[in-house]
Amino acid sequence: MTEQQKPEEMTIEKRRLRMWLRMLRTTKSVETRLREFLRDKHDTTLPRFDVLAALYRAEDGLKMSALSKQLLVSNGNVTGIVDRLVSDGLVKRIMVENDRRSTVVCLSSKGRKNFLRMADQHAMLIDGLFSNIDDTDLNVMADIFARLKQKEDAHEQIG
Amino acid sequence: MTEQQKPEEMTIEKRRLRMWLRMLRTTKSVETRLREFLRDKHDTTLPRFDVLAALYRAEDGLKMSALSKQLLVSNGNVTGIVDRLVSDGLVKRIMVENDRRSTVVCLSSKGRKNFLRMADQHAMLIDGLFSNIDDTDLNVMADIFARLKQKEDAHEQIG
Repeated sequence: MTEQQKPEEMTIEKRRLRMWLRMLRTTKSVETRLREFLRDKHDTTLPRFDVLAALYRAEDGLKMSALSKQLLVSNGNVTGIVDRLVSDGLVKRIMVENDRRSTVVCLSSKGRKNFLRMADQHAMLIDGLFSNIDDTDLNVMADIFARLKQKEDAHEQIG
Repeated sequence: MTEQQKPEEMTIEKRRLRMWLRMLRTTKSVETRLREFLRDKHDTTLPRFDVLAALYRAEDGLKMSALSKQLLVSNGNVTGIVDRLVSDGLVKRIMVENDRRSTVVCLSSKGRKNFLRMADQHAMLIDGLFSNIDDTDLNVMADIFARLKQKEDAHEQIG
């Protein structure tokens, strides 16, 4: 709504809103490119990739509840996604000792190999999409995102 | 995967990946707060709000195809969302002159009022979530997002 206004004429509230809309647009656009890449090169989806990535980071596996919490991209039908990954042999369910009612899910060795192959190409794709973002920019953004995360963590402790 | 490594020990590829994951996490977290706000304060959803926002920006209304293209947040079932907004009296369909087959959708005056009330509070919420992002940060981020946009537009022209 305010795209035409010059930044120096805008209130800080409007500038923050504009920045948010641009960040949202950038994120959506990168997500679209990732979806295309996963579909065209690996015949898979962003939610599946995301589940594999979360399980790769958790070496001892995750309870389903912890997995849902960690997912970055979409936690739509996590159970359905995990069921499919298990039947494809990429993920396995393991009983937790001393707690018969609960299981954790973790990558199989096939799942690990499969993920690492995709992750390498995923990193290259992201590197290409952000190739005009240099070290100085990355330092500034790391600082900004760290401050936002601090603020959010403080909110969660209060909330 | 590389959260523990110091930035100066990381390749630029890894640093870009880490920045992207942080941007994604921030975006998802802000979207979650927006969903809660829209649900709790306005009994509505992010896709509905997003359709109203797109129609607010387009004073002459939009064809359904143009609307789908513009949506930032989710273009899930745009037709279904518009149908509901029409039956709620917030959006109306108008015949395009000299083209009987096509219609544009636009805000009704009730829809406009409804949107403006939400938009004010939405802007305040965003302002609060980004309150520790100051003018200098906003300048840097505006520059970064502008460069990413340029790159993307160039890609679209080639692609």
